[in-house]
Amino acid sequence: MVQAEIKRIARDIRTMRTRGAGKIARAAARALKLEAATTRAKTPAEFLRELDDISSLLLATRPTAVSLPNAVRFVILGAKRERGADLQTLRRAVISRADEFIRDSRKAVERIGEIGARRISNGDVVLTHCNSDCALAVIKTAFKQGKRIEAFVTESRPMRQGLISVRELSRAGVPTTLIVDSAVRHFIRDIDKVIVGADSIAANGAVINKVGTSQIALAAHEARVLFFVAAESYKFHPGTLVGRLVKIEERPPKEVANPKRFPGVKIRNPVFDVTPPDYVDLIITERGIIPPSAAYAVIQELFEWRPGEELV
Amino acid sequence: MVQAEIKRIARDIRTMRTRGAGKIARAAARALKLEAATTRAKTPAEFLRELDDISSLLLATRPTAVSLPNAVRFVILGAKRERGADLQTLRRAVISRADEFIRDSRKAVERIGEIGARRISNGDVVLTHCNSDCALAVIKTAFKQGKRIEAFVTESRPMRQGLISVRELSRAGVPTTLIVDSAVRHFIRDIDKVIVGADSIAANGAVINKVGTSQIALAAHEARVLFFVAAESYKFHPGTLVGRLVKIEERPPKEVANPKRFPGVKIRNPVFDVTPPDYVDLIITERGIIPPSAAYAVIQELFEWRPGEELV
Amino acid sequence: MVQAEIKRIARDIRTMRTRGAGKIARAAARALKLEAATTRAKTPAEFLRELDDISSLLLATRPTAVSLPNAVRFVILGAKRERGADLQTLRRAVISRADEFIRDSRKAVERIGEIGARRISNGDVVLTHCNSDCALAVIKTAFKQGKRIEAFVTESRPMRQGLISVRELSRAGVPTTLIVDSAVRHFIRDIDKVIVGADSIAANGAVINKVGTSQIALAAHEARVLFFVAAESYKFHPGTLVGRLVKIEERPPKEVANPKRFPGVKIRNPVFDVTPPDYVDLIITERGIIPPSAAYAVIQELFEWRPGEELV
Amino acid sequence: MVQAEIKRIARDIRTMRTRGAGKIARAAARALKLEAATTRAKTPAEFLRELDDISSLLLATRPTAVSLPNAVRFVILGAKRERGADLQTLRRAVISRADEFIRDSRKAVERIGEIGARRISNGDVVLTHCNSDCALAVIKTAFKQGKRIEAFVTESRPMRQGLISVRELSRAGVPTTLIVDSAVRHFIRDIDKVIVGADSIAANGAVINKVGTSQIALAAHEARVLFFVAAESYKFHPGTLVGRLVKIEERPPKEVANPKRFPGVKIRNPVFDVTPPDYVDLIITERGIIPPSAAYAVIQELFEWRPGEELV
Amino acid sequence: MVQAEIKRIARDIRTMRTRGAGKIARAAARALKLEAATTRAKTPAEFLRELDDISSLLLATRPTAVSLPNAVRFVILGAKRERGADLQTLRRAVISRADEFIRDSRKAVERIGEIGARRISNGDVVLTHCNSDCALAVIKTAFKQGKRIEAFVTESRPMRQGLISVRELSRAGVPTTLIVDSAVRHFIRDIDKVIVGADSIAANGAVINKVGTSQIALAAHEARVLFFVAAESYKFHPGTLVGRLVKIEERPPKEVANPKRFPGVKIRNPVFDVTPPDYVDLIITERGIIPPSAAYAVIQELFEWRPGEELV
Amino acid sequence: MVQAEIKRIARDIRTMRTRGAGKIARAAARALKLEAATTRAKTPAEFLRELDDISSLLLATRPTAVSLPNAVRFVILGAKRERGADLQTLRRAVISRADEFIRDSRKAVERIGEIGARRISNGDVVLTHCNSDCALAVIKTAFKQGKRIEAFVTESRPMRQGLISVRELSRAGVPTTLIVDSAVRHFIRDIDKVIVGADSIAANGAVINKVGTSQIALAAHEARVLFFVAAESYKFHPGTLVGRLVKIEERPPKEVANPKRFPGVKIRNPVFDVTPPDYVDLIITERGIIPPSAAYAVIQELFEWRPGEELV
Repeated sequence: MVQAEIKRIARDIRTMRTRGAGKIARAAARALKLEAATTRAKTPAEFLRELDDISSLLLATRPTAVSLPNAVRFVILGAKRERGADLQTLRRAVISRADEFIRDSRKAVERIGEIGARRISNGDVVLTHCNSDCALAVIKTAFKQGKRIEAFVTESRPMRQGLISVRELSRAGVPTTLIVDSAVRHFIRDIDKVIVGADSIAANGAVINKVGTSQIALAAHEARVLFFVAAESYKFHPGTLVGRLVKIEERPPKEVANPKRFPGVKIRNPVFDVTPPDYVDLIITERGIIPPSAAYAVIQELFEWRPGEELV
Repeated sequence: MVQAEIKRIARDIRTMRTRGAGKIARAAARALKLEAATTRAKTPAEFLRELDDISSLLLATRPTAVSLPNAVRFVILGAKRERGADLQTLRRAVISRADEFIRDSRKAVERIGEIGARRISNGDVVLTHCNSDCALAVIKTAFKQGKRIEAFVTESRPMRQGLISVRELSRAGVPTTLIVDSAVRHFIRDIDKVIVGADSIAANGAVINKVGTSQIALAAHEARVLFFVAAESYKFHPGTLVGRLVKIEERPPKEVANPKRFPGVKIRNPVFDVTPPDYVDLIITERGIIPPSAAYAVIQELFEWRPGEELV
Repeated sequence: MVQAEIKRIARDIRTMRTRGAGKIARAAARALKLEAATTRAKTPAEFLRELDDISSLLLATRPTAVSLPNAVRFVILGAKRERGADLQTLRRAVISRADEFIRDSRKAVERIGEIGARRISNGDVVLTHCNSDCALAVIKTAFKQGKRIEAFVTESRPMRQGLISVRELSRAGVPTTLIVDSAVRHFIRDIDKVIVGADSIAANGAVINKVGTSQIALAAHEARVLFFVAAESYKFHPGTLVGRLVKIEERPPKEVANPKRFPGVKIRNPVFDVTPPDYVDLIITERGIIPPSAAYAVIQELFEWRPGEELV
Repeated sequence: MVQAEIKRIARDIRTMRTRGAGKIARAAARALKLEAATTRAKTPAEFLRELDDISSLLLATRPTAVSLPNAVRFVILGAKRERGADLQTLRRAVISRADEFIRDSRKAVERIGEIGARRISNGDVVLTHCNSDCALAVIKTAFKQGKRIEAFVTESRPMRQGLISVRELSRAGVPTTLIVDSAVRHFIRDIDKVIVGADSIAANGAVINKVGTSQIALAAHEARVLFFVAAESYKFHPGTLVGRLVKIEERPPKEVANPKRFPGVKIRNPVFDVTPPDYVDLIITERGIIPPSAAYAVIQELFEWRPGEELV
Repeated sequence: MVQAEIKRIARDIRTMRTRGAGKIARAAARALKLEAATTRAKTPAEFLRELDDISSLLLATRPTAVSLPNAVRFVILGAKRERGADLQTLRRAVISRADEFIRDSRKAVERIGEIGARRISNGDVVLTHCNSDCALAVIKTAFKQGKRIEAFVTESRPMRQGLISVRELSRAGVPTTLIVDSAVRHFIRDIDKVIVGADSIAANGAVINKVGTSQIALAAHEARVLFFVAAESYKFHPGTLVGRLVKIEERPPKEVANPKRFPGVKIRNPVFDVTPPDYVDLIITERGIIPPSAAYAVIQELFEWRPGEELV
Repeated sequence: MVQAEIKRIARDIRTMRTRGAGKIARAAARALKLEAATTRAKTPAEFLRELDDISSLLLATRPTAVSLPNAVRFVILGAKRERGADLQTLRRAVISRADEFIRDSRKAVERIGEIGARRISNGDVVLTHCNSDCALAVIKTAFKQGKRIEAFVTESRPMRQGLISVRELSRAGVPTTLIVDSAVRHFIRDIDKVIVGADSIAANGAVINKVGTSQIALAAHEARVLFFVAAESYKFHPGTLVGRLVKIEERPPKEVANPKRFPGVKIRNPVFDVTPPDYVDLIITERGIIPPSAAYAVIQELFEWRPGEELV
């Protein structure tokens, strides 16, 4: 039986009290660790059944965020490897993997900032879209290193998260310019590098990110402007190895315009779009720089996947 | 001396009481006609000086709208052709050209609708950007002809004129979908044709239009979606024949975001961008369909320009 | 009332006893000339009505061949220019224009051969598709001039007119290789120039020709192989100036496969496809070499069209 | 000495009594298994020599089919790994690998159908070329899952294997349209996905398949239509790791046209062409989805190849 | 009989005592004017024969410079138009056309500088290749207007005329950077505009200029850097209207390397290459800005050519 | 304390007495081996400190040649793997790795010649740039195998190393043509394959090589000409895995032109440029053929790097 505390964790994710790819993932790891620490299971089999129940509970909270199933999978793999071992060993394995995930995901953003900053040169003008911790870490780290750089930020309709990025960069002292999403191609020749985050990265190196990203990537490609993606490695999507499509969430129309004022009009509000690997120069992760063509090998290694296996 | 009524016309343009490319142009033609009808000039020379004064007054009202100088130039050419003639002939020439301009510019949108509708096929999904009378005329005319078509309209930040288009199309019965500007590439494979207006068309066929247009054109080009521009012929920019750059107006930052809430942040708000001729399939005018490669010849003919001549 | 002889000419076109773009066009010119020579009309108005009747009769025979309406239009223009003149002048104008058309269209292929051969260099390997008199004239003329050249010819399914071209070139002594349509990209790096005919050329320089042409043009473009179109100037399509679409004829399924052996299967058999002007290097006509970007001006001049005019 | 039964297997492959990439490969595995089961060799060395003899015999039957050497290599690797072991262990290793190959290759098509169907969406129009079991499995599986899809099939000259595909899809209930090879670009904007098979896949992800494939891929790429390759993993070509070129077989001219009717004309009939990896979106195998950029790693793993090694 | 003075003019061109496209052209015009002024011809026919003789003499001096035949053609047209007139009228026509050509060609460079400078913005970094008066005029005029601009100049092997440009720009005060020809793509993202001259411009807008130009244009195109050509209108090549190829001169190997030090090695030294119109944004002439797609119309107008006419 | 002999080795590298990527790398390996053979260290720790000192000494000699740090890293890894072992084992490990490196790097060029020659077909015209042992090995090996091939070589300004290549190929009997760097695009359609060396290969497959390489790659790509890179595997740059930029060395201006003759002129002389992976078809190494998309995996394997690790 699932504990009250774990239920609360799941509920907080579902109700978006806990939000942001990183926080969600760490909360899930914490829930599994809690179970391992406090389980009343008597046998390994019983314990594994409990883990399965909790996994199902967690996975049902938010269907499209890949960081959540990735955290669960990472922790559960610890137990699976010890299959056949006694209960204590299993519990320790789960706790240790959960701790590892939590620790690593916290360090990842900082590390991405360091690695990515190596690709930002003095004098660069960098454009970012929406509000990505990783992308901003790269810009801010480069700036802190004393590089004289500037930032362009898109508004990022409909939720206008670009305004959050503008504030964050401005507060860090980076000279920042705000533009509407439509103005990217107009300014692209003034930009040296584009750097965005990712919600999911497919096995072929395609990047699923905030809607508009693929348009920016296309404009950058047209003008030979470098296009970087900054993302923790748990943003890679293992299901794409066996052909699963990444579902593109559509959010409520009202975020775009008040539907009542436009009766009979359909309002479509996709949150993400897909940037093909051809337009991505590098993916900056905490594990190093990954060209999109290496996404397949990286996912295979990260998720200890063997060809032919169906990922659960 | 310029009459009170003509001064009022100029003031209305300057204060934007009279606005919209077509209305501004027709008002300017009317002002010149008024002068021709009521002038107290005694000699042709005197009359021509008056026309020059009025032209200067009108041209000073709005520096970037090409429809205005084009209207003035069109009317004045009527007088220039009669150079050497007596006063009556000159006055009649000006009145006749002004009437011609006003009449033609009114019919132009309707005619563009007819011609453009020939390129819209049954079942087409058509995307438009911002709010162009000509582009909407094409869509609505095709729809009235019984073609089952659908429209996608972008929001068109920052002024969101796309909402006006949505209402206009919806009211005409066209099934219409509203999307944010960033979502164009996401939906582009569902689109059969893009149709937009133009604020200015250069001698090389480049199209200056609402910011974001060039990004849509690029996405359409990438996916082999046809890209049409619908514009009255007085949108062609004769100055580009002799190398004049079309100035891209930047409007107040507050249209994008409240500058006070973003101290230290630069907000740039270009109104237009430039779509290169390579991404334009056809320009639909009231004179017929013009491929961008014919823009040079069309401008030369329209403005009765001889190579080498500096356009005033 | 239309004469028996003219009816016979129309019938021969309709039943395809008279066929081939050039022959059809000349037959139509002949019909109009015959009428002008033998009319019993008493007044100019009566004569013009007769011409209209005959035009309608002729135009109804084959709806999509542009050479036919172009011949009719060319001849009729002779009369139209003399509008207001007496009957004799009108009749002479029609006869003279008909003679001019017939004479010119006969010389055109030969002249195209001469002009086009200038663009074929010693040692060239030239690929052609389907069976175009003009394209073959270029190859054969260059060969007769002593240039050591080779030809590749596609089979051109479904009617396999490529086999006719193979025989014609082989008989002329040109070393010739036959390949299936699918093999073009495989061999394209061995090809120096592609030369094809045209059924219709639009105002934007797009070329409507035998299905498969656009695929060859794409493969040539990808490999920087020059792509030439050889066509008489009456293949230019004036209706495209005012937005008319060139209809792509679909022929009976049985040309592709026996429908009875494939019950429930749809067989589609478009005869032509559209090659965009970006993939066309030059259009070789009897009037000289025309880049696709000049098609608009050429059509305007050829058909004495004034912008705004609706072409009948 | 090679047994009569094994000789028969080799003869059947050579005479094409046994044909199709999968059947040939399985027959070869069976031959090696038979030898392992019934050998009269007294020592491991003797047994290995026998295997070498049989391999040579089998490899000589059809020089260009990569599935055959891949099957042989797969089975022989089982013995090689046990090098140093006793005769019984060696024999068991060969038998076990042969069984594994036969079993896996049978399941592969079905599994490819399942994985590939995940990438086919409701409403998709899918185009296929020639006659590939794997490509058809994807279409048919998606259709059986209740997705409303349609298929376009090219005739695939000269052997017209497209007609076999048309029948197979039509029999499965899939609404199917037949077109000639030349018509692909004409219809490509109506297509959502292209899916073809492969005869061989190189280390750089280039796909060798039925002639015409690369032209379709190019047209798909031009129009942003997804291009999928469906193939069992034994279609990967290990020799390309060390620079071996995949030989493009040319078949008899008579398949294209009767050479006697075209004396002096060369008829070239390449069976395959090479599609560059840039035009391939995904390779669907029984082991999962492989982006072309991962082909190198996949071949290395599949054939247990170490860099520097010359593959026999 | 040709006069001694005219022979001397021809000899000076042949021996390169008179050199540079503009000087050669003006010398030829002067020769014809001299003949018109001093002829002893008694009849129009005799005078025209003399002009033909002189033309032949002049055209034989340098076979590939298009400015020379263009000057001759321009002047001769003056006489041709008066065909049927008396001797005095003919002579006056030739003299007047020759004067017009000389005067206009002198003013052209200056005018090109003015028009072109309108396309150079404050802060621009402009790259030029080889040594073109027109291209340098644009840069220097913009600089004199007070625009803060910088220049990059390529060495332009083998003759290294880039060094002349470097000196000229440096002397004019323009901050100038010299690079080798190979370094263009490395620096292209720092460049805002490329501006080069032209030796010949074809009817399709293709530009024949110093070898290396097409490579720079390609690199500029890849990076969305504007590519301008600055050239007097007599650089347009009328022969291309009827399919004549512009011959690419190959100069002596010794300009590249001492052939004696490389026995058995072939050294090829083409002076020019062909830049396709797709990579040219604008052609700046003294008559205004011409997009490459308008080259056909411009040549037609400049040379008063009627379609179908063979240019002598 | 570092021995005199080792100091001499370092000095020879620094003073360029020892030069060429291969020779430098082998000298460094030799220095480490010498230390291992003759060390007076008493403990493993002491020995490891000595190795660190020598590494620092060697790495300081030439900052940008990746072959040098790669050789050091390769040898040191031998010791690191044995960490915890006794002194003798450590010394033996270092000696054995040094020998392995020296032996392998010597064989590499020969092996690259063999592998690469498989991709050169009879009749090929191959272009090379600058002077790469590996690229020339491929051409010469193919020629020795009896393939009738020809070579084009660029001059390769400013140092003109192309002249060395011309001599080397000519001496080997290969028909060779010398051209200036600017002429590549002019001749590219006559070229079947381009083959160049590399100074460094990044994790994303980008190739750093002699300036001008990227321009040639671009022209080859535009014309569908295959572009091969031939390089020993120690040219792969492990630092790029963690985002380190490959520094592009700029050499003294005087190599381009005498700065004294151009006072006030900046002369920039970058030695290398970066060719993006999209323009590279294959990388030919002694370990086999590597598509640029596999560079990441190859570097990871070659340098036994684990994701997340910072490379020293």
